[in-house]
Formats: sequence, C-alpha cells, structure tokens
Amino acid sequence: MLESPRSPATDPIGVFDSGIGGLTVVAALQDLLPSETIFYIGDTARVPYGGKSRKTVERYSIEIGGLLLAERSKIIVVACNTASALAVPRMQEIFNVPVQGVVAPGAAAAVQASRNKKIGVIGTRATVASGAYEHAIRALAPEADVISAACPLLVPLIEEGLFEDEITDRVLVRYLAPLLEQGIDALVLGCTHYPLLRRAIARAAGPDVRLVDSARNCALAVRDLLESQGLAVPADRLGRLDVALTDSTEGFLRAAEKALDLEIGDVSLRAVQTAE
Amino acid sequence: MLESPRSPATDPIGVFDSGIGGLTVVAALQDLLPSETIFYIGDTARVPYGGKSRKTVERYSIEIGGLLLAERSKIIVVACNTASALAVPRMQEIFNVPVQGVVAPGAAAAVQASRNKKIGVIGTRATVASGAYEHAIRALAPEADVISAACPLLVPLIEEGLFEDEITDRVLVRYLAPLLEQGIDALVLGCTHYPLLRRAIARAAGPDVRLVDSARNCALAVRDLLESQGLAVPADRLGRLDVALTDSTEGFLRAAEKALDLEIGDVSLRAVQTAE
Repeated sequence: MLESPRSPATDPIGVFDSGIGGLTVVAALQDLLPSETIFYIGDTARVPYGGKSRKTVERYSIEIGGLLLAERSKIIVVACNTASALAVPRMQEIFNVPVQGVVAPGAAAAVQASRNKKIGVIGTRATVASGAYEHAIRALAPEADVISAACPLLVPLIEEGLFEDEITDRVLVRYLAPLLEQGIDALVLGCTHYPLLRRAIARAAGPDVRLVDSARNCALAVRDLLESQGLAVPADRLGRLDVALTDSTEGFLRAAEKALDLEIGDVSLRAVQTAE
Repeated sequence: MLESPRSPATDPIGVFDSGIGGLTVVAALQDLLPSETIFYIGDTARVPYGGKSRKTVERYSIEIGGLLLAERSKIIVVACNTASALAVPRMQEIFNVPVQGVVAPGAAAAVQASRNKKIGVIGTRATVASGAYEHAIRALAPEADVISAACPLLVPLIEEGLFEDEITDRVLVRYLAPLLEQGIDALVLGCTHYPLLRRAIARAAGPDVRLVDSARNCALAVRDLLESQGLAVPADRLGRLDVALTDSTEGFLRAAEKALDLEIGDVSLRAVQTAE
C-alpha cells in the first residue's frame, strides 16, 4: 500500500488523462468546487491510450497515479475513459485514497437521459472493446440496449483542431449511422476529448438524440466522495490549477485552455519510466 | 559505450519503428538481402512518436536501440522517419554498431527524382518541424526548394485501414494543395506508414509528381554498410524475420504482413521502461 498523508484543506484533487482531453473534467470540477486546488497530469509522452492493451494502460495509469500521490493528492480522478474502463479496479486495490473514474458517472447520466433505453456509446477502440459502459449501464438498467462504436479518428481530428470541418462531419456521419439506425435516443461521449466536438456530434446525431458527457457527473461524484469522507476544503478558499505533462508539447494545452476558459497556473514536466 | 560482440554470419539486422510502418523497410531489405536475418521491434506501447518532443523521441529510440543490441544486432536500422530525423545523431554517438536512418536515403532519392528541384515532403508533425529532410536535401542540392507539410491525420487513417476511401482522398487533397501550388515534381513520403497509402497519394498528387519512398534506398544503404564493414552474411543462407512489439496489439501487424507479403517468424513482447 502506498501511503499518502492527508491534509484536506491544502491537498489537491489529482486528475489525470492520457493527454489534454481530461481538462473537460477539470472545467466541470472548478465549476462545482471552486475552492479546491487541482493537480492535473497529462501523459502526453504516451498519448493516446485508446489503442493499447489493458495491461499497458493499467501500468501507465498506476504510474501516473503514483505521481499524483507524490503531489499529496487526496483523491485520484481518472479523467480518461480508456483508463477508467481498464485500470480503475486495480488502482482502487493498490491506492489508499479514493479513485473516481468517468465511466460509472457517464453510465448513470445515460440511463437518466434515455427514454427508450436504446443508448449509444462512442469511444476509443480500447474503451469500446472493454465493454465497460455496457456493463455499467446494464447494472443500472438491465433492459437497456447498448450500441457501441469505436471512433479512433476523432481524437486525431480534435488534436488537429478540426472542430468545425466538413471532413470531421463526414467521419461522424459514418461512425454514427449504425447507432442511429438502431434508434438510440441518448449518446455517451465516451472519451474526454469528445466534448470539444460537441456541436459537430450534435449535428450528426440530430435533434432526437441527447448527448451525455460524463464530465459534470464525474464532478458530482467527486463532490459526494469528498464530503462523505471529510476531505472537502473550507468554502472560503480559492483553488488553483496546476498542470504537469510528461512530454513538452504545450500547443494543444493552450488550445484547450482557451476553449474551456481555464486559468492554468504552473505547467511542469514529469518524467515517466526513464530509460536511464 | 554499449558493447555488442559481432558474429555477422548469424547476427541479425536490427530494425525498429514506433509501430508497424517500418515493415515497409523490412520488405525492401528482404527483397535486396534475402540471406540476412532481421529482428524487428515495433514500439507499439508508445506509438505514435510523430507528435512528441525531440528529447522524448531520442530517449525512446535509445531504449529500443538497446533492446536491439541485446538481440546481438550488427546494425541498427531506424525505419521511422520521426526517430531518424530526431534521434539518429545521438544514437550514432552512443552505439558502437552502424546506425542507418531513412532520412538521408530518402533525401538522396528525392534529389534524383526531381527535375525542377521543387521537392515536397510530407510527414508527421515532429519530422516536418525538425527540418531534417530539408537539411539533407539542401546538403545534396543547395538550389532545391523544399516545401513540407505535416500530415498528422494520415497515420490514424492508415491504422483504420482506410486506404481507398473518400475521406482519405479529401484529407490528402487538402494536405497536398499548397505543395502542388508551388509546382513540386517530386514528393517524399516522409513516414514509413505512407507507402501503404501510395495509390491514394498518387491520385491526389497527379501524374506529374514522382513519389519517393525511402524504403528501397534505405535498404541499399544498409547493403553498402554491411559490405564495406565486412558484416554481410554468406549468400547461401536463408534469413528469417522475427518481430517483437512493446504492446500486445497484433491486429495491424497481421494487416501489414498481408499487405506487404511478409513471412513473420516469432512474435514476442518486450517490456519498455517498466514501472515496477
């Protein structure tokens, strides 16, 4: 067991993603919990996780979790759907702070949003192959039909900044066609990058499909966890956001900072698995 | 200095790429040097390298080079344009076997192929940002105009298998337009994935542009190096190909094996930078 002494008044909420997409969860956390300080790690040296095996994603996630504990994180938020789908159970076993992923909150929001219980899920290859959303949705609504589609081109399109683009629209139409044919009325954006493409996805999905993004529901789950475990910071404080990346590519960070209206304090570099 | 005792008759040619694209170089090597045994490592746990920083690409490349030396490689072929552009000089400093990249052979082939010396280069963000091709081409033909374009969507499209697809065609038309406007008559496929998209690229570039792929020229350079250093295997042998990946995702490996008509012997897994 890794030990991490807790001083909730000053200790940060640790958040990580394979890249920068998890900042959508950070934005939701800041909205809901403005007094909390957040320490965010983007594993940009090894992004993306979405095509990698369970064992590798688990190993990377545990390593980044260790870096967050080294920053005295009082809770670890896995703001990456792939890592949530593949690594949260093992992280909960070996870390002695709460570990909150995005899959369970997203599944709960989808069950709430859907009337006909035909629920679509889009995500990376690894997230979809894991069946994690299907499992979590069925646990809440055993009668639900879950129709999933892996969309490996969306993250590259987002990282290219093609939010409003004919090519992105065509890719989305193709990915969503089989889900729409099945009559879904709710669609889980099962990758933390996807909210940056929300408008294009809404266009392709049409007005009858409600989009479900796990960021806000994840933030609500974090608030409940902090309160129930006495880890919340006093409300009179003003939190800050510090960011560390594992590779020094800041371009997309600045784009996301602007798109999500975040104010980022320190940006530092963390070495992972050095060869030396 | 790392030591690697040499027994050229049995020691393999070590080849690596960030993923599977470098198998295009393997196919060219087998064609030219059928007696040589090849040990190939695809760093699939950390693919792609193309958006990462010089320091990170250098660190990964040195680590994989070490794994190839552990397999007694008599020469290291860097069959990845990003790693060739960013890491070969440092690898040549610290390894005591020859290190051959793909940039220099590709640049030489481009200078040969172009009549008007307006040469286009397409590659990953990191390869293009490095200016490595521009530098290598200008060293051979100081009067050449080199027009480069980063094409970060092509590798994901290739890994999706969209070789013949309207979306791929549209992406290519957009990437190539500025190069064609400048009147290029030769185009370097500056990423070892791109030969798998050769037909679509030829369509988008039109009949007046010669496509330059560094695989064959790299294989010729390797043959020269082996002969000049007395490292070639006797011609009566029949070589084999063994492959190791750093992550257990074999899907695309099998697709490439088929597309390139390769016969792969052992496939094994190598750990990189383990967290334990």
